Formats: sequence, structure tokens, C-alpha cells
Amino acid sequence: MTKLKNDRLIRALLRQPVDATPVWMMRQAGRYLPEYRKTRGQAGSFMALCTNPELACEVTMQPLERFPLDAAILFSDILTVPDAMGLGLYFAEGEGPRFRKPVRTEADVKALAVPDPETELRYVMDAVRLIRQTLHNRVPLIGFAGSPWTLATYMVEGASTKTFSHTKGMLYNEPRLMHRMLETVARAVTDYLNAQVAAGAQAIMIFDTWGGVLTPADYAEFSLQYMQQIINGLTREHEGQRIPVILFTKGGCQWLEIMADTGCDALGIDWSTDLAAARKRVGDRVALQGNLDPAVLYAAPEVIREKVADVLAHFGPGSGHVFNLGHGINPDVDPEHAGALVDAVHELSRPYHLQDGN
Amino acid sequence: MTKLKNDRLIRALLRQPVDATPVWMMRQAGRYLPEYRKTRGQAGSFMALCTNPELACEVTMQPLERFPLDAAILFSDILTVPDAMGLGLYFAEGEGPRFRKPVRTEADVKALAVPDPETELRYVMDAVRLIRQTLHNRVPLIGFAGSPWTLATYMVEGASTKTFSHTKGMLYNEPRLMHRMLETVARAVTDYLNAQVAAGAQAIMIFDTWGGVLTPADYAEFSLQYMQQIINGLTREHEGQRIPVILFTKGGCQWLEIMADTGCDALGIDWSTDLAAARKRVGDRVALQGNLDPAVLYAAPEVIREKVADVLAHFGPGSGHVFNLGHGINPDVDPEHAGALVDAVHELSRPYHLQDGN
Repeated sequence: MTKLKNDRLIRALLRQPVDATPVWMMRQAGRYLPEYRKTRGQAGSFMALCTNPELACEVTMQPLERFPLDAAILFSDILTVPDAMGLGLYFAEGEGPRFRKPVRTEADVKALAVPDPETELRYVMDAVRLIRQTLHNRVPLIGFAGSPWTLATYMVEGASTKTFSHTKGMLYNEPRLMHRMLETVARAVTDYLNAQVAAGAQAIMIFDTWGGVLTPADYAEFSLQYMQQIINGLTREHEGQRIPVILFTKGGCQWLEIMADTGCDALGIDWSTDLAAARKRVGDRVALQGNLDPAVLYAAPEVIREKVADVLAHFGPGSGHVFNLGHGINPDVDPEHAGALVDAVHELSRPYHLQDGN
Repeated sequence: MTKLKNDRLIRALLRQPVDATPVWMMRQAGRYLPEYRKTRGQAGSFMALCTNPELACEVTMQPLERFPLDAAILFSDILTVPDAMGLGLYFAEGEGPRFRKPVRTEADVKALAVPDPETELRYVMDAVRLIRQTLHNRVPLIGFAGSPWTLATYMVEGASTKTFSHTKGMLYNEPRLMHRMLETVARAVTDYLNAQVAAGAQAIMIFDTWGGVLTPADYAEFSLQYMQQIINGLTREHEGQRIPVILFTKGGCQWLEIMADTGCDALGIDWSTDLAAARKRVGDRVALQGNLDPAVLYAAPEVIREKVADVLAHFGPGSGHVFNLGHGINPDVDPEHAGALVDAVHELSRPYHLQDGN
């Protein structure tokens, strides 16, 4: 493997010295960019964009053409996995994702198969390969998947939900059935992520968007346990390079300690915790990624700069920090504000790395 | 004031001995009850229901006719206050609350007046008086209001929001303007709650539904500070009776210590924290109210009983616990399941009060 021209992200995730704090933004390839909206319009639908490796590569690269970001992240959707498991993903206009065949009964759970990523999800692997070629080792490429619990909420509801009535109904009434389902999904996600690594993903992020709706006991049993299984099964080294794993539970600030115990390399942190407190709690076990309130990007560039400075100061000196938003960038953000964020991180973070710049 | 026939709620909020843990449910008067849907249908609209004291009283009483609840809570809406401030509240079918005149500019903020509760919100005070008459001191009546920050999110957006773009835009770009607005809203809420107490409310709850979307520093500055101002200005005793105050920030589990420092009597706890951990953190400074996952009510009655037992065991022996859901009851819950919850709390909690039953 050729050496990365910019390896700040990988180094920071492994808590190795860097010259400046690396930065990328969740959903950096997305609707806030006019060029994304154009490509999306040409593709015809969101899924047409995801399943076309050339277009997926194009939108993955778009934010890197604008901003000096320290990482690319595969453009895809967490629901490609349940789709490949036979649930029939579609997007109802203005209503978010839907599944034609939600998973509700024991028969539904038994019918779930673990897809072969290089056949059923070949379009994702082709996108990974194409993006790696296109990147020319400029920055690393992050691969990702949803957590089994998060995927299960969509699979059981068949749609987005506020109440999680079917999912929690199954969890509380038929915990063994829920476990059986999560077990299968965890195997599917493990295979999927390992295939991404084989295809060229250089870091992995697991998005547990809905772990935060669980009680502490249920989080450990129904979400964290299956992320642990994935981490245990992941390829952690590929072509002589360590593949760092980032774990992100939205609303999971209470569980940082047990999340760090999974053996992941880094934790994604939302903005409800400050990084000083988070760092104190996890010590030097993991790196931290985050955690600017995405709504700061509605503010003027000078305010953005000030708030970036606050986040950097909260983390403090030394490596082990990847700057990011605490959640995905909102579609109604001015792209120039995103640029102000990226510049501010690089400029203002240098003093924190003076002792150990590489 | 005549003595309450059932004063468990007040005693538990004041951490005095009780014979069983008191229980009520957030949104206990609501859409999960067919009799509520019938009255709501007759009223024609949600606001017609809120502004008619007889109908508001009728729906307040409905859950008490079904279940041996230990408290009534005024049927109303947190947005009656900004409506009385001149913003023009209406409910767009299937889209939630809207304001005709959202607050966006300095001129908008300056134009905000503090309403006189006995004139502009007379219909609420009349409902409080009528409910007290109808209750005949059977159980206490809880009055309530939204927190200034929570009200501000609706007032600035003019609608429900996921991104809080205008509200956080104002917070980050024009913090002084946001403070001026919150100051005015805090005065309006203080007057409103004191009028409820004068009219007969026997406990007060402040709902900070959206405090959890703030960073820790912004929570202290923009939400907690104004709840503190309200608590400082509240009538804490009326006709020789202590009026307990409950503070509830959804998603605020990280801030229990500073919330307890406000001088409130109790904290509402959502299900993301367990009560053993919460009790350890706040000690004997405040009582705790909560915290069953509302989705447990989708489960079978025997599972509900088991999960109620868990919550009671987490709190442990002694007074200072008011059983509740961690959030409002969902509209698609079977009313019999709510009944199973209430019965389970009374039955299973007695052993925890053997030493100090009154």
C-alpha cells in the first residue's frame, strides 16, 4: 500500500502525534452542497445514487474539492445492508426510508440471510475501489455501517419512527427473537465491513444512531453487545496498516466507559458532553471524535471560529482528537460556513500539537 | 384548605414517608384514551379543548375515572403562554403547533409583553379552579408550564423543528437578543405558574423538553438559568401548604447535579439513566420522578409488571420517588396496559415503604 499523503486522521485515531487536528464532517457529501443536489438530481433518486459506483464516487469527492478535509467517507446509506437481506428498501418522497417487508415475526427473522458483500452489495465495494483510485492516497477513506440495533429499528418498523413501538414491543415481549435478529444482522455487518476493508476502506465507523433511545441495561444487552461482536470480528490490519474503528452512539454520552471497553480505537461524541469531561472519563484508552453542535454552522464565520476554538480547548493539548460535528451537517447550512469550520480547525489546532508534531 | 384524601404525591415530592409509591403518567389525559378522543372530537380542535374550562376539566378527570392515579395534571399546552404573548398559536392538521408571528428580530423581541394570567390566560385559571372543585381533594392537582428555552424554540421557529436552525442561529449570532427574549418569557412563566397556584394547583412541573439539544455550557446559560429565575420567583407555600416544584429536562441526565442545585423539590428523570445512579448523584437533595421507558407499555401486562419492579428496585427503599414514565404516554398504547402499570406500582412498592408508612 502506498503511503498516505495526509495521514492525520489515521494517526489521530491511533493517538499518534500530528501537526494539526484532522477534521471531517459527518454527511460532508450531502444536500448542503449544490453540486451534490445536482448529481442527485441527475441520478433520479437517492438509491440510484448509492447503487451507481461512479456517482457515489463523484459525490464522495465533492466536499474534498471544496475543503482541505482530512478524510473522505464513502457515500452510501446504512440501510443498504437490510436491503441486501431482502427487505426491499425504497424512499417514499418526503417521508424517508421504507421497507417493503418489515421484520415482525419469527418466520421473518428466520428468513433473514447474511448477504455476500461482493455479490449483493457489490455496488458498494465497487464504489470503495473507485474512490480509493480517485483519491490517489490524498487522504484516507472511511467505510461505515449502521449498528445492528439501529438497523433493527428500521427493519422492524419498516420506516422511520419516533415511538419505536414495534421494535420495542419485540424487545420487551420477545427478547429472544430480537437477539436472534441482532445476531444475524451483526454477522451481516461484520462481513460487510470486512469487505469494505478488503476493497480499500482505511478506517471504519459504526453508527449507532438509535442506541440512545434504550435504557442503560437494554443498551448494553441489545446494542453494545452486538457492536462488540462486530469489533471482535473485524479485520484490524490490512496490507500492513492498522484499520482504526470508531464507535458512535448518538445520545450515548453516559456509556462512554463501556463503549471504550469494546476495544474500538475511537469514540464519536455528540455535543451534549464536553470533550474535557469525555477525555477525563476514557483516559488514554481511545481517541475522541467530535463534537461541535452542527447548529453552530448557522452562525456567522467569526462565531464558528470561536466555537471551534472552544472545542479544541476542551480537548486540550496532544493527539487523539479528530474534529467533527456532533451529528451530520444539516442540509440548510451555507457551504462557506463548512469551509470556515475546516480552516479554523487546522489553523487554531496547531498550538496544541507543538510538542509532538510529526 | 381541606386535607387531601390522598397526599402520597405531595409527601413523596417532599421526601416524607408514604405507604406506597405514588404514580401518575405524563400525558395521562390524552389520545390513548377513547373517551379523550371523543371529547376532543366534540370540541372540534385541540385549542378549543384547551380554552374551554369545562372540557379541559372533563379530560383532566378521565384517567382518574379509570385508574387509581395519585395525581391529576391540568390538561393544557405549554404553548398557551406564547399564544397569550401575541404570537397566534394554531395547529396545522397533522403538522403540530404553529405560530402566525414567529419571533426573529429585535423588534419582535421588544414587542413581547408579559401577559396577565387572569385575563389573557383566564381559561387556564378557570380550568384549574373547576378541576379542584371536581377533585374534591381526592388527589392533588399538578400545574405546569414549559421552560423558557423550550418555549423560545417554538416561538423563534414558529413550528416544531428537528434542526433548531433559527433558534440556534439567534443563540449563536445574537446571544444578547436571545437572553432578552428568555428573560421576558421567564417572567411570563413565573406569573403564569403563580396564578395557577393561586387558582389551586398543588404542585408545579416545569417541562424543559428541548434543554437536551444544548451543549453543557449553553444549557446552563440559556435553559437552566431561566428555570432558576422561575423557581426563585415561585410561590412555594399556599394556604399553609408547601407547593413542590418538579424540574424535567428531557435528555438532561448529565446535568442532574446542577438541576438539583436550583432549589426545586424533585427532578423528572427520563429512562436513559437508572434511578439508582440518579439517586446516588443527587443524594437527599431532591426527590426523583420517573422513569419507565414509555415503550414498555407496548409489552404484555406481565412484562410491564416486571419492568415496573425493576424501576422500583433501582430507586430502592424509602420515600422520595414518584413513579412516572420517562416521557409522555404514546397515543397508540392500550389503556389496559396503563392500568397494569398503575396497579403494579401500588402493589409492588409497598415493601419499600414498610419502615416508614404514614
